[in-house]
This record gives sequence, C-alpha cells and structure tokens, in this order.
Amino acid sequence: MKKIITLGEVMLRLSPPGNQRFFQSHSLDVEFGGSEANVGAAMAYWGLNVAHLTAFPDSEIGWAAAGQLRKNGIDTQFIPFIPGRIGIYFLENGAMQRSSQVIYDRAGSAFANFDGKDLNWDAIFDGASWFHWSGITPALSKECAELTLTSLREATKRGVTVSGDLNYRSNLWKFGKEPHEIMPQLMELTNVFIAGTRDFKQCLNVEIKNFEAAREMAFNRFPDLQYIVKTDRISQSSSHNTLSAVLYEEKNSHSSKSYDMTHIVDRVGTGDAFAGGLIYGLLHMEPKEAIEFAMAAGAIKHSVPGDVLLCSLQEVIDLASGEAVGKIKR
Amino acid sequence: MKKIITLGEVMLRLSPPGNQRFFQSHSLDVEFGGSEANVGAAMAYWGLNVAHLTAFPDSEIGWAAAGQLRKNGIDTQFIPFIPGRIGIYFLENGAMQRSSQVIYDRAGSAFANFDGKDLNWDAIFDGASWFHWSGITPALSKECAELTLTSLREATKRGVTVSGDLNYRSNLWKFGKEPHEIMPQLMELTNVFIAGTRDFKQCLNVEIKNFEAAREMAFNRFPDLQYIVKTDRISQSSSHNTLSAVLYEEKNSHSSKSYDMTHIVDRVGTGDAFAGGLIYGLLHMEPKEAIEFAMAAGAIKHSVPGDVLLCSLQEVIDLASGEAVGKIKR
Amino acid sequence: MKKIITLGEVMLRLSPPGNQRFFQSHSLDVEFGGSEANVGAAMAYWGLNVAHLTAFPDSEIGWAAAGQLRKNGIDTQFIPFIPGRIGIYFLENGAMQRSSQVIYDRAGSAFANFDGKDLNWDAIFDGASWFHWSGITPALSKECAELTLTSLREATKRGVTVSGDLNYRSNLWKFGKEPHEIMPQLMELTNVFIAGTRDFKQCLNVEIKNFEAAREMAFNRFPDLQYIVKTDRISQSSSHNTLSAVLYEEKNSHSSKSYDMTHIVDRVGTGDAFAGGLIYGLLHMEPKEAIEFAMAAGAIKHSVPGDVLLCSLQEVIDLASGEAVGKIKR
Amino acid sequence: MKKIITLGEVMLRLSPPGNQRFFQSHSLDVEFGGSEANVGAAMAYWGLNVAHLTAFPDSEIGWAAAGQLRKNGIDTQFIPFIPGRIGIYFLENGAMQRSSQVIYDRAGSAFANFDGKDLNWDAIFDGASWFHWSGITPALSKECAELTLTSLREATKRGVTVSGDLNYRSNLWKFGKEPHEIMPQLMELTNVFIAGTRDFKQCLNVEIKNFEAAREMAFNRFPDLQYIVKTDRISQSSSHNTLSAVLYEEKNSHSSKSYDMTHIVDRVGTGDAFAGGLIYGLLHMEPKEAIEFAMAAGAIKHSVPGDVLLCSLQEVIDLASGEAVGKIKR
Amino acid sequence: MKKIITLGEVMLRLSPPGNQRFFQSHSLDVEFGGSEANVGAAMAYWGLNVAHLTAFPDSEIGWAAAGQLRKNGIDTQFIPFIPGRIGIYFLENGAMQRSSQVIYDRAGSAFANFDGKDLNWDAIFDGASWFHWSGITPALSKECAELTLTSLREATKRGVTVSGDLNYRSNLWKFGKEPHEIMPQLMELTNVFIAGTRDFKQCLNVEIKNFEAAREMAFNRFPDLQYIVKTDRISQSSSHNTLSAVLYEEKNSHSSKSYDMTHIVDRVGTGDAFAGGLIYGLLHMEPKEAIEFAMAAGAIKHSVPGDVLLCSLQEVIDLASGEAVGKIKR
Amino acid sequence: MKKIITLGEVMLRLSPPGNQRFFQSHSLDVEFGGSEANVGAAMAYWGLNVAHLTAFPDSEIGWAAAGQLRKNGIDTQFIPFIPGRIGIYFLENGAMQRSSQVIYDRAGSAFANFDGKDLNWDAIFDGASWFHWSGITPALSKECAELTLTSLREATKRGVTVSGDLNYRSNLWKFGKEPHEIMPQLMELTNVFIAGTRDFKQCLNVEIKNFEAAREMAFNRFPDLQYIVKTDRISQSSSHNTLSAVLYEEKNSHSSKSYDMTHIVDRVGTGDAFAGGLIYGLLHMEPKEAIEFAMAAGAIKHSVPGDVLLCSLQEVIDLASGEAVGKIKR
Ligand SMILES: [Ca+2]
Ligand SMILES: [Ca+2]
Ligand SMILES: [Ca+2]
Ligand SMILES: [Ca+2]
Ligand SMILES: [Ca+2]
Ligand SMILES: [Ca+2]
Ligand SMILES: [Ca+2]
Ligand SMILES: [Ca+2]
Ligand SMILES: [Ca+2]
Ligand SMILES: [Ca+2]
Ligand SMILES: [Ca+2]
Ligand SMILES: [Ca+2]
Ligand code: NI
Ligand code: NI
Ligand code: NI
Ligand code: NI
Ligand code: NI
Ligand code: NI
Ligand code: NI
Ligand code: NI
Ligand code: NI
Ligand code: NI
Ligand code: NI
Ligand code: NI
Ligand code: NI
Ligand code: NI
Ligand code: NI
Ligand code: NI
Ligand code: NI
Ligand code: NI
Repeated sequence: MKKIITLGEVMLRLSPPGNQRFFQSHSLDVEFGGSEANVGAAMAYWGLNVAHLTAFPDSEIGWAAAGQLRKNGIDTQFIPFIPGRIGIYFLENGAMQRSSQVIYDRAGSAFANFDGKDLNWDAIFDGASWFHWSGITPALSKECAELTLTSLREATKRGVTVSGDLNYRSNLWKFGKEPHEIMPQLMELTNVFIAGTRDFKQCLNVEIKNFEAAREMAFNRFPDLQYIVKTDRISQSSSHNTLSAVLYEEKNSHSSKSYDMTHIVDRVGTGDAFAGGLIYGLLHMEPKEAIEFAMAAGAIKHSVPGDVLLCSLQEVIDLASGEAVGKIKR
Repeated sequence: MKKIITLGEVMLRLSPPGNQRFFQSHSLDVEFGGSEANVGAAMAYWGLNVAHLTAFPDSEIGWAAAGQLRKNGIDTQFIPFIPGRIGIYFLENGAMQRSSQVIYDRAGSAFANFDGKDLNWDAIFDGASWFHWSGITPALSKECAELTLTSLREATKRGVTVSGDLNYRSNLWKFGKEPHEIMPQLMELTNVFIAGTRDFKQCLNVEIKNFEAAREMAFNRFPDLQYIVKTDRISQSSSHNTLSAVLYEEKNSHSSKSYDMTHIVDRVGTGDAFAGGLIYGLLHMEPKEAIEFAMAAGAIKHSVPGDVLLCSLQEVIDLASGEAVGKIKR
Repeated sequence: MKKIITLGEVMLRLSPPGNQRFFQSHSLDVEFGGSEANVGAAMAYWGLNVAHLTAFPDSEIGWAAAGQLRKNGIDTQFIPFIPGRIGIYFLENGAMQRSSQVIYDRAGSAFANFDGKDLNWDAIFDGASWFHWSGITPALSKECAELTLTSLREATKRGVTVSGDLNYRSNLWKFGKEPHEIMPQLMELTNVFIAGTRDFKQCLNVEIKNFEAAREMAFNRFPDLQYIVKTDRISQSSSHNTLSAVLYEEKNSHSSKSYDMTHIVDRVGTGDAFAGGLIYGLLHMEPKEAIEFAMAAGAIKHSVPGDVLLCSLQEVIDLASGEAVGKIKR
Repeated sequence: MKKIITLGEVMLRLSPPGNQRFFQSHSLDVEFGGSEANVGAAMAYWGLNVAHLTAFPDSEIGWAAAGQLRKNGIDTQFIPFIPGRIGIYFLENGAMQRSSQVIYDRAGSAFANFDGKDLNWDAIFDGASWFHWSGITPALSKECAELTLTSLREATKRGVTVSGDLNYRSNLWKFGKEPHEIMPQLMELTNVFIAGTRDFKQCLNVEIKNFEAAREMAFNRFPDLQYIVKTDRISQSSSHNTLSAVLYEEKNSHSSKSYDMTHIVDRVGTGDAFAGGLIYGLLHMEPKEAIEFAMAAGAIKHSVPGDVLLCSLQEVIDLASGEAVGKIKR
Repeated sequence: MKKIITLGEVMLRLSPPGNQRFFQSHSLDVEFGGSEANVGAAMAYWGLNVAHLTAFPDSEIGWAAAGQLRKNGIDTQFIPFIPGRIGIYFLENGAMQRSSQVIYDRAGSAFANFDGKDLNWDAIFDGASWFHWSGITPALSKECAELTLTSLREATKRGVTVSGDLNYRSNLWKFGKEPHEIMPQLMELTNVFIAGTRDFKQCLNVEIKNFEAAREMAFNRFPDLQYIVKTDRISQSSSHNTLSAVLYEEKNSHSSKSYDMTHIVDRVGTGDAFAGGLIYGLLHMEPKEAIEFAMAAGAIKHSVPGDVLLCSLQEVIDLASGEAVGKIKR
Repeated sequence: MKKIITLGEVMLRLSPPGNQRFFQSHSLDVEFGGSEANVGAAMAYWGLNVAHLTAFPDSEIGWAAAGQLRKNGIDTQFIPFIPGRIGIYFLENGAMQRSSQVIYDRAGSAFANFDGKDLNWDAIFDGASWFHWSGITPALSKECAELTLTSLREATKRGVTVSGDLNYRSNLWKFGKEPHEIMPQLMELTNVFIAGTRDFKQCLNVEIKNFEAAREMAFNRFPDLQYIVKTDRISQSSSHNTLSAVLYEEKNSHSSKSYDMTHIVDRVGTGDAFAGGLIYGLLHMEPKEAIEFAMAAGAIKHSVPGDVLLCSLQEVIDLASGEAVGKIKR
C-alpha cells in the first residue's frame, strides 16, 4: 500500500444549509477542510496510507478537526496541538446565476504560526512514495513558507515524488514576500505541477503569452519536472459547469473526456478531488488512464457535499471507464 | 368506488438527508415503502379503496409501518402483527453522474416468513376489482412464493383482474428456487404484465432476441394475458432522465408522450407510481388515455421525496392532458 | 439617500422544507412576506431608506413580523399593532413538472380591516421620492381599497412618483366591488405600471386585442403615466424558466437581456425583486440600464429561498453588466 | 373490541422547536390535535375501535389532518371534506417559570360552520359503546352547539354511554349564547362528567361554595349521571407539576396515586390522555382501577411531544400498577 | 418613551444544538450577542427606545449582526461598518454536573480596533436618559478603553444617568494595561454599579475583606454613585441554580425574592437580562420594585435559548408580582 | 502511553430526536456504539492508545462505523471487513416516568459470525497493558464465545491485565449454550469483574444469598481475581437517578461518592464510561482514587448524547475532586 504525505492548513468551514444565503436562518453546517488534506482524504478512502502534516489549536476545535481527518482515514500522528486559533472560512453555496461566496477569517491561525521545528522527518517519510503541497501554504506566513521549503528538501533527498498545486491566490501573500521570491525554489523541488497560465505568471513573475509558452518555459527551467496538469472549466452558472483536463509531458500530452456537469451540489474541493485522483492515477496507471481517473474523481466531487470526495475506488473507475451512470445500484 | 388489493413486503427505508452520502451526517430520513404498497398508496390518494396484504413485526416499528400505510389511505385490516424483524433498505440518493445506491438488509424479515395461512380470502376479495403483485414477492422465500400463488388463485377464481410487475432482481431468488420454476405459473394467472425483455428472459428462462419476440411469445403462451406494458428510460444522469411507455395489446399498441425529466428529486418508486397510474387508468379510461395517465403519474413521482406518489388526481390529469406545468397555482 | 414608501399586507408564509409536499414531514419553514414589502426589502438591502405601511396583529406573531421587516432594513415606525389575526399563506415549492401550490388563509386579517385613519401622511411622505402599491391591496376589502386611494392622493399631492404593480388576481376581489370600479382611479394617480395585457383587461373591464393596443390605450387614458413595464416568462417547468422584460415609454421601449434560469430555488417574490430593481433603477439610472438592473434583480431572486431578495447592490450590477457568473468569489 | 365515538374540532398546531420562543427561529413543528380526537387516539392506540366525528377543509391541509388521525388508528370514514379553513393554534412550550402560551386562530373554521346534517347516525353508532364530547364544541358556534345536542340525543336513544369533559373556556362562547343556555341540556344527556368546581359554576350559572356542593347538586339535578371525575394539578413551574385525580360516585369516591412530574416535555393533551384512560378504564375495569389507569395515562402524556398520547397499553398498566419506572427496557 | 444608549462588542455565537458537546454533529446554532447589546435588547422588547454603539465588519457577517439587532428592536443608525473580522465565541451548553464551556476567538475584531472618532455624540445622546457600559469593553484594547471613557464623559456632561456592569474577566486585559489603571476613572463617571466583591478588588487593586467593606469604600470614593447591585447565585449544577439580588443604596438596601431555577435552558445572558430589568426598573419604579423586576427578568432568561431575553413586559411583571407560573396561557 | 485492547460488537444505533417516541417524526439520529468500544473510546479521548477488536460488514455502513471509531481516537487496524450485515439497535430515550426502550435487530451480524482466525495476536498485544471484554460477546454465538476465550488466553499468556463486565442479558444466549457452560472459564482468566449479585448467579448458575456471599465465593473460586466492582443505581425516573459504586478487594473495599443526577440527557453507555474510568483509574491511581475517577466519568456520561463519553481528562478529574460544577467555563 502506497504511503502519501500531504502538508497544509485545515480550516473550519461554516456554511448555511442548502441554498440559503449567509445567516438567512439560525444554523451553519460544519465541515473541516483544506486543499491538501482534501487531496489526502480522497486517496485514504481508496485505501492508500495517507499522513497529513499540519498543526491544530489545542482545544475542542482542534481535537475535532483531527478526529474528522481520522474519520476520513488520514493518519494524524504527526500533527501537534499548539496554542492559537483555527482558521475559519464561511462558505455560501451559489446557485443558478448567483456565485458561491467565501469569507475568509484565517489570519493568525495556529498553522500560520507553525514552524514545524519538532517534526521527525525520518518517521514522516519512512516508506513514503509521494509528497503533495500547494501554493496556499507558502502564501500564509514566513513560517509556512519555510516549512514548505524544508518539507520539499526532506522529501526530495529521500527520493519521494513531489506534486504541487501552484494555486496562486491574490488575497493571500500578505506577510511581506511576493510569490516569485518564494515559489521558484519550491517549484525546483517539484515533479508534477497542477497549474494554469496565470499560476506560472504570478509565481515566476514573468510575461507568458499562453499556456504553450508556459509549458515550454517550465520544462526548460525545472529539470526535475515530469508533468504539468491543467484543468479547463467553463462556468455556465453555479449549477452547471463543463470540465476537462490535460496531462502534459515535455513532448506528449493526454486529454481527458469532458464532463458536462449540471445540478452541481458542492463545487468546493473539486480541484482537490482531481489532484487526489491524479496522484492515485500516476502511482497506479499509465498517464492516459491517470488523467481520466483524475477527471472522473473531480467530476464526482461536484455531487458530494463538503470539502472532501467521499467516493469508492470502484465508483471512480466506473465513471472513468464510461460505465452507465445515474442508475440505482442495488 | 373501485376496490384494489395489493400484496408485498413493506420495508423501513433509511436515507441520508438531501444530497449527502451514506453516514455523512448524524441523521437518516425515515420512510416506509415497498413496491406493491407504493402502487396502492397512489391509488388510495386518488380515492380508490385499497387494501394491502403483508405482515409486520409486532413492535413499535411494525405498528408505525401500518400507521404510515393508513395515513396514505390504505386499509390495513388484513395485516397481521407477527414475530420477527422488519426488512430495511438504506438508500443514498444519487446526483449528477453519481448513481443512487441501495443497501438491502431484508433477509429474515417477518414478511419473508409469512405464510398467510390465516388470511380470510373471502373478506379480502369481497367487492374487489383488481389484484396487483410483483416479482419481488415470490423471490423472497418459499413461503412468499406460495403465498403469491395462493393469492393469485383466490383472485382469479373470483374474477378479479390481475396485474403483475415482473421486476426480476438478480440479488433476490436466494431461497433455492430459480425464477423459471415459480414465475410461469404466476404469469398464467395474470392479465397485465409490466415487463421488459430481460424480465421475460429471466422469468421464463428462454432466449428471446428482442421485445417483439417476447411480446409474441407471451401472448401465445398466456391465454389470459390482455396487456403488456413497458417503460423506456434513458438515464443521462441521476438528475436527468427521459421516460416514455407503451401499452401493448396482442395486436395494437399505445405509446405515451415522452417526458424529459431534469432536476430529479427522488427516483425511487417512480415505477410503482406508474403502475398505480396504469391500474387506475385501465379501470377508468380507454387504453390510450390509460397509458398517458400512467406515464404522467410516473413523471410526477420523480419530483416527490419518498417511496410514494403523493399527488392529487387533478394534478395527474393536468399533466397527462398537457396543461401548462411549472406555474404557481394559487 | 432616497426614501421610498411601500404599502401592503405582510403575511406569514409556511412551507414544507426542501422539495417536500404539504405536510409530508413534521415541520414548516417560516417566512414573512408580502408583495410590496418584498419590493421594499430589496431596496433597503441596497441602502435606500424604505418605510413600509401595513398593520399587524398585536401579538407575538405581529411583533415577529415587524422584527423581520426591521431585520430586512425596513423602517417600521408607521406600522400600528391592532386586534386581529395575521394573513397566512401555505406554499409548496414545485419541482420539475410539478407546479408550486399556494393555499391562502388570509381572510379577515388585521390588515384587511385596517382603515389607516391615524396615519400621519406628512411624516410618512416627508422627504419621500417614491411610493409603490400593488393591485392586491385594493382587492382585499373596502377599507383597503380606500386606504390605497388615500395613500395615492397623499403621495401625488406631495409630488412623489408612484408605481403600481397591477397584479390582477381572480381569487381576490370578494368584498363586493369589481376591479374596474376601483382600479381606474388608482391608475390615474400612478406614473409607472407593471402590467401585462390581462391586467389591463381586468382592471379596466375592456376588450383589448394585444399588448400594443393596451399600451396605446393606457398612455392615452392616463396622462400622468410615464412607463409601462412588462415581464415575459416561459415556464418550461417549475425548475426551469426563461425570463425577460421590456420598459415601454409612450413612443420608445427598452428590452432587457433574456435569462435562461434552470435549477430554480424559489420562484416566489421574483416579480417583487424585479419591481424593487425597477424602482431603484429608475431612481438612479437611464431607462435602458434600469430595465437591465431590474431584470438581473429578478433573475437572482430565483436562487434565493424565501419571499425576499437578499442580494447586494454589487451582485445585481455584476449580473446586469454581464460579469462572469457561477464562480466562487473569495 | 369496544367501539367509541368522539366528536370535536381538530386543529393545526404550530409550535417552535424545543424550548424556543415564538418565531425565534425559522421553522415550526406541525401537529394536528383537538381535545376529543386526542381522547380517541389514546384509545385507538390501545386497540379500541374509535371513530371521530368532525369536518375538514377540502384541501391538502384537511387531507393531511385526516391522514394523521388514520395514522393514529382513528376511523375517519364519517368525516366530510367541506369548504373552509382549518382552525390553527400556535403553541409555545413553557419551561421553568415561563408559562406555555397558546395563540388561537380558529375563528371561522370549516368545523365551526359544520351542521352535520348529512351524518348517518345509524352507521355511526352501530355497535358503539361510548360517546365522548367536550364543552369546547358547543362553545364554538350555533351550528356546533346544535350538532353536539343532536349527537347526544342520537347516542342516548341507542343506549350508548356518554362522557363529557365540561372544560369551560372563557375565550370561547362568542356566538351569542352563554354556557348556561346550552350546557344544561347537554349535561342531562351525559353519564360521566370530567369537571371541577369552576366548570359547574360557569356551565350552570350558579353559585357553588365548593366541589362537594357541586357534586351534590350535580347528582341531584342530573339523574343519569354516574360519575364525576376531577383532576387536581399543582403547577410548581412549567417543568414540574404534581397531579392526582378522584372518581366520584354519588356516595363513594376513589382517589388515584399522586404523581410528581418533573422534566415535563409537553403539557398539552395531558387532560385528554387522562380522559382516554378514564373511558378505557371504565369500559374494562373496576372504578378504583379505572381512575389509576386514567391517571397513569395522563402522567405518561407529560413525557410525550405532541397533542396525543402515543403509549402502549402495557406501559400504562405498568405505571398504574407501580412497576419500576425509568429503566432501559431491552 | 425613554431612550437608552448601550456600548459594547457584539459577537457571533456558535453553539452545538441541544445538549450536544462541541462538534458532536454537523451543525452549529447561530446567534449574535454581547453583554451590553443584550441589556439593550431586553429593554427594546419592552418598548423603550434603545440605540447600541458598536462597530461591525463591512461584510455579510456584519450586516447580519446589525439586522439581528434591528430585529430585536435596537436602533442601529450609529453603527459603522468598517474593515476587520467579527469576534466569535463558541458556546457549549452544560447540563447536569457538566459545566458550560466558552471558547473565545475574539482577538483582532473590528470593534477592538474601533476608535469611535466619527461618532456624533450630540445625535447619540439627544433625548437619552441612560447610558450603560460594562467592564468588558475597556478590557479589549487601548482604543476600546478610550472609547469607553469618551462615551462616559459625553454622557455625564449631558446629565445622562450611567450604569456599569464591572464584570472583571481575567482572560481579557491583554493589551498592556491593568484594570486599576483604567477602571477607576470610568467608575467615577458611573451612577450604578453592578458588581461583587471580586470586581471591586480587581478594578481598584485593593484588598477588601468583604462586600460590606467594598460597599462602604465605593460610596466614599465615588461621590456620584447612587446604587450598587449584586446578584447571588448558587450553582447546584448546570441545570439547577438558585438566584437572588440586592440593591444597595449608601444606607439602605432592598433584597429580591430568591428564585429556585431548575431545568435551565440557557444560562448565558441571564446577567444581562437582569441588568436590562434593573435599568428599566430604576427608570419606572421604586427601588424595591426595581430589584424585583430585575430579578424576575433575570430568572425568565434562564428559560430562553440565545443571548437575549425575549419576553414581554407583562411576563416580567407577572413573575415579579408572584402571579401563578407554569400554566398554559390561552 | 498505556495500550488497551477491547473486544466486542459495534452496532448502528438509531434513535428518534429529542424526547420523541419511535417514528413520531421522519428522522432518526445515528450513532455507532457497543459496550466495549464505548469503554475504549472514553480512554482514547483521555490520550491512551486503544485498539478495538471487532468485525464490520464490507459496505458503506461498516466503513462508516470504522470511521466513527477512528474519529473517537480508536485504532482500527485490526478490524476486518467481511460479508454480512451490521447489528442494529433502535433506542427511544425515556423521560420522566416513561422508560427508555431498546429494540434489538442484531441477529446474524457480521460480528456474530466472526471467528477471528486471522487475527495476529502478537501484533495486537504488542505493548498492551490491559484487555477488556464483556459478557455480551460470548452470549452472541458459538464463534463469539470461542473468540472471547481465545482472546483471554492470548492476553493472559502475555501478562496483560484483564477486566470483564459480566453483564448478563437474558435476551441473548440464544445459540444453544447457557452462561454457566461458558462464563466460568472466561472468569478464570479475568482479573477485574464488573458485576452485581445477579450476574454471579446467572454466570455461575449458583444460588447466592447476597453480594457479600458472591464476593467471598468469587475470590475463593478465581485465584487471579483482584477486584470486583459494583455500581448501585436508584432510578427515581428516566430523568433522575442516584448512582454510586464500590471497588472490592478480597479484604478491603473503597466506596465512591454518590451522585444525584437529575435532568439526564442520555442514560445509554453510562456503565461503559464508568468501566473506562475504572481501567484508566486502576492504571494510573490508587484504588480509592480510581473508583472516584470511574464514578465521575460515569456521572458525566449521563449529560452527553450518544453511546460514548466525550469528555476531557480534566473534566473528570475536576468532578471527582469536588471542583465546583455547573459554571460557565470561559
Ligand atoms: Ca452544504
Ligand atoms: Ca457538508
Ligand atoms: Ca430524501
Ligand atoms: Ca422522504
Ligand atoms: Ca423553502
Ligand atoms: Ca426560506
Ligand atoms: Ca414540541
Ligand atoms: Ca411534536
Ligand atoms: Ca442552544
Ligand atoms: Ca439559540
Ligand atoms: Ca439523542
Ligand atoms: Ca446522539
Ligand atoms: Ni439542496
Ligand atoms: Ni430563514
Ligand atoms: Ni436537495
Ligand atoms: Ni461531516
Ligand atoms: Ni457533513
Ligand atoms: Ni433543495
Ligand atoms: Ni413521511
Ligand atoms: Ni418524509
Ligand atoms: Ni427567514
Ligand atoms: Ni428539549
Ligand atoms: Ni435567533
Ligand atoms: Ni435561534
Ligand atoms: Ni434540549
Ligand atoms: Ni455522532
Ligand atoms: Ni451525534
Ligand atoms: Ni432535549
Ligand atoms: Ni407527528
Ligand atoms: Ni411530530
């Protein structure tokens, strides 16, 4: 059984039930989620051995967050409980022509202040095949940027494959550094990028005219780069999207089917489900199959409430391989 | 007012709320449902006199199940409360490309052990016009197979019209008999089949190349057969189906409109609503009107949560006759 | 900041949760709503100073209704608490081919018996720019018809612009007068009609062959009339509508974009949201922009549960101006 | 199996969940209840054959009310569906020092306008042993007062035993008659009174100095009177009451145990549960046992949410006979 | 109608439903509350004109908080919407021997950074009779301490009576000042203290041997002091408390009844309800009546979910004057 | 950190919300629980290393059950997923004089058919300090009785301390053996009994006149027995119990405080919480402290919904050591 390590913040997600707007009624649905842990949870559900690196506040909130990760099958043994608050995000699910809305309240979280000095990297990477990070973590704080770099060095020196979801977000990067001061050295230590043209522009602070140019530049600049993966989403409305993906090698590329997704239940975490599918796929399949598997995982997530893809391996395989969908399975 | 008798198991249905996956949160929605009782409930709501034959455990669970049937307008006076458990089915509603899922936990139920020896057939069929059974019942146990045969004989000898939803299910038939050892004698006593090509193949253990062949064979082999009814469903996704139906006489056939059904709420019980509509239609209308009425009933059920079509006669008539839909009726 | 006065009944709305049919389960969702107050609430949310005129029962129900208006930003200082009951409407949300259903229980409400004799019109219209009424109010009772007329005279003599949503409803007008005995004098005092061909026919008791004829007749007959606004809705199903609108001046007209609205959440109050958008638009924009703003407001309401459009000014502007929709806004 | 007939209005009950005050949150719990139907439902749950006489609006609301009665085991075959509204009562459950609150909105209901002219009294009382009415019904309207009198005459002439819960309520009796103009002739036709001193004063418009005097007067004035039953309740708080009862014959009396009831769940309908227990008891037991059975039924109701005692015969017997309470029964 | 001004932070309160522990299930109940606004809300419900001073984040969360204050009858016209987050507190309701638990996440809130420089004190105090503050506000930040002092000076110079709930909390006062550096000058400008012995010790940094000594010291040191009010609570368990209060003048004192409160619903905000009752009482009654009114208000709050006392004037008067409690009021 | 092994069935628990009776409304609350896993979960929450031995069905239901154990901090690595159903129990929470009710539907579960042949006892007991079983397991089936014996032998031969909750239940033991044919050999291998007089009688099939006689007999017959622990519960009602416990050594005994527990939230699992507290106590404290710790854990469980004690170590210590209870901890 493959062992995967993921790193990143896990937040408390609070969202009004169903299609309500913020605070329309008197309760909020509770989830715990974070991009990288979501990636890990999908793979844990498929039977892989996934350990997540983060830090939680030492309170009932942090304990509950860790419990939720364990419920999702994630190994939490490396997660310390430290002083501080948990990052929060308020999510209002969009519908029809109305967009989804996120209000972040994540500043000053326990994780943002976490330096990871006491992490036992030998234990963490013992037997590990893959390490996954995202561009959110180095954007949070100086400590988090350093922790990301350290983790990548520790992974690389043990021969662990590294994937990074570049995921540039303009409302982060508030701690005094710009992306291009941090990201290039992280990208050098990464073998698989999940990224679009804009991510390359922002992370490298370069002018690129299109994705093809970005691809060429990236394979030139980062010798250890093996794959770039890009998803293409058309948002007809909050309830209806079309989605496909391409896996690029330096010379070849593999395109997935395109999914027409209507009656969307929860759009959050669909990229993470895709990334989980991608890693699972690259560990177990040929590139063409891997990108189909990843895209099917991402598609199914649109029908699952919450941050996390709760879905059996067989369900992903069935959708990827074109099995009839939408039946009642008895 | 017509009197209808239905026979079959009623189970406890447990399903996660809304679009959640199994056990995503801490409650399950409760319904009581079973194919034949669902058929009866639709007609009871339209004002017919419907009595259901089944057996319930003598516990708060069985009492509640009977109460729910009565609430739906069904006469429960012939239902005994006996030792045993209630059959359970766990239902996860599908959405988008994700299929609905049923986990059965129905083995060893009170009904499966019910021999019906004490049933008073004279009282049951006094004034009755129609009897409805399905292929689920004889598949449950030796006792149930015999009870089905007895009920058909008792109905037939009193001149009651009989409909049967052949409904072959491969995950039943575990009690030592194969369908073709049981079903043919039941079919002989039945005047209306709801069935597709696969049902004929499995129930009769014959090779048939298509529905036309099945139809010809059936009308030849079963002299009392009056109609075969077949629905045709295309599942674009769990949220979107297209559905139509045809009523076959030996020489003629009547086709319903086709319904394009998107934003599906609950797919379960739609065939039962159709069957209820069919019986109601055949009792009150010409065949062409009957199949339109049945199809409209089946279509509306896709918008109603639960196993049972809760819908007024007028609503079905309006949809069948092409009245404008989707308005606010004040 | 513009000040707007609205007049009309606010009812208790009781509806089964989600897609359930009436009384399928054991709770009802609670809202307070009424056409004209809904119009006001939309504008209050956008920052306008809106005061609503109505009367509530002097009980916990009336106090809660007033509290809900205040929560929505409406000034309730002119609302008296008087003996009587609150009007109630039971709403079942339609889905797919199944229509929404309203059961009214509004007879004999406190508002229907309210004569408004103690209203301080000077205080009410102090600084006001606009007054909005609808054809529901004069249809309720003799007292309400007179109150509407009084309010229109008080508004007009102070130079306040008046809009009226003619909104003919055949199940009202039970108090002994026919619409054409009341409506014409109210229409004379109104500058903006929201109305379709049927409204003109019923309110004026005339034969009109089409909307163009109605328009010509109206601009001729009512010299103070400035605009007629008409929406055009196609109901493919309860879950899918297409909607557009036109603003008619005597000689010109301005058409909005057409919105294809699928996955509808709550159809009730969409006309009120449109009317709120229209008044806001006419107060702040050119006619062409105003009708686009109004139509965008109406479209977004289809995605919001409840009677009231809860939606920021920016969201309406974004949709009206063709900003990308259906994204996650972080 | 004994057959019981009950007569009275059934209302829609709307109450905020748990301990909330009116309209604190956005849903209301739904029940259907009315004093006399509650009495019948308790007995139906114990296996008696109970038919209720009332009238419902011919709408989804009335259909649901009838369905709920059937679910509770009540025979609804004599209930007509007629034009009109359903009576509503809003109930806020008290707690601690805070009283429960009821807001009635029952004026002009279908039942209040029901004259019962088409009732088939022969069918209704065929095989019946007991008829139960309460002082609420004649207080509603002239029609209801006359219907009560008619039903008592029809019962009496067929030798059916009659019980009446005098239940004087000062907020009723608004239709132009005073209680003493109506009640005496109803009391003459009644064999069992459930009543306290105040009920006698108000119904007979007499000065009585205490219950003993009332008892003497009643047995003198009403020759067919067999029992008077009185409950004594001490309300320490909404959450804590002490309750006992006495069954008076002309010369003897039988007192029940006193129940100290703390942690009260729902106080509504406890008198009805008691009355149901009383009728069941008098039909099956000696007077002393009957009053203990009745009091135990009333006590258990305090722990059951809703208007109706949902409780098996065995549970009442166990409590009445001093079986250990508060265990986990496995 | 008296006008009251209150000042203080309003937080988002998140609590698990019913008796659940933190994060036992997947939703949190939502309230907005803060000590001083709670005080104001009680009085607004009784018909007083209450305006609250605070600052909210300019987001859907802040808008909702203001809407909730308005719903509770509070005038929000002086509340600015500024950048920042809302303070949050997570509340787990205790039960039996298990204590309630609060987890604060309030650091860095919009209010803590609010300097109130733009407040229009003339408008705020125009017509005002009373100003209420608590010791929580100066403990939050330097800005808040200064804002409190400013508001007291503005109130005092206009002859407005001032009450202060000293309310020392050891987990606040983190901004670099100790209470005795700030509180004395605020106390000098205050006419009514709600305080116990420990509050005096901590606020004045003095050794006091008992409450009598504190009382003597306070009336000596603060010449404008008129009353000290102290509540005495015995916590038998989270579900059962005994509570009484005394109003001290310099020479006299008035004691309230003692309330034995069992089956407690929500302990939070009971001191605020008491304070609201106290201010209302001192504005409208003699001191002895005032302390009884205050204590009754505090007692009823224990039965009301949420931060705020939702309770009519009549209910408080009834309880204070010994009216029977725990009945069903129809 | 101590390692504890527990063995036993985990069932799906379905219960109506709040104080409702079975099937009063349309949802059931979901928990997963079983006596021995509940014991383990309490200790896992206090930081011990707890692994549970059981078997789950290989379906979404079994996966969810395992996830819930992991969420509670239990190591699930030794749990196989095998064919079969999950045992179910329906629980209705009692209130006041109404008892709680359990309906078991556990026959034929995956665990009942589990022989444990593939368990790796070396891995399981590696580093373990304690093993806990209960009398429920050997009562389920021949396989379960043998598995219990095997596990006790494997524990004992590795020097692991063993506790057994004898817990005789008359509605089990249906597989053909009587308790005294199985239990004595299990008791021989056990060091700590949780048991009362009746348990000894039934498990050993002996006549014993009182607990003292049972104690003497037990210490004589079972040489490895170290402690017998007995709880004494008085059930005033479902909402009010009094509870204490005694720890017996052969010659000495230690009694806990007695807890008066009123306003009980959930009585289920209180004995398991006690047992968890006992094991924790005996591993970390003197006997007198241990029995106080155990009793405090058991008492707190009465306030926590669900099967499992969710409670921090500090909360138990505070209650055991007489810290003030019922406060708001901030
Ligand atoms: Ca959600
Ligand atoms: Ca969710
Ligand atoms: Ca459902
Ligand atoms: Ca349902
Ligand atoms: Ca709704
Ligand atoms: Ca709503
Ligand atoms: Ca309730
Ligand atoms: Ca209820
Ligand atoms: Ca609460
Ligand atoms: Ca609350
Ligand atoms: Ca529970
Ligand atoms: Ca629970
Ligand atoms: Ni939804
Ligand atoms: Ni709402
Ligand atoms: Ni839904
Ligand atoms: Ni969850
Ligand atoms: Ni969830
Ligand atoms: Ni929905
Ligand atoms: Ni239902
Ligand atoms: Ni339902
Ligand atoms: Ni609302
Ligand atoms: Ni409750
Ligand atoms: Ni609220
Ligand atoms: Ni609330
Ligand atoms: Ni509660
Ligand atoms: Ni849970
Ligand atoms: Ni739970
Ligand atoms: Ni409760
Ligand atoms: Ni109910
Ligand atoms: Ni209910």
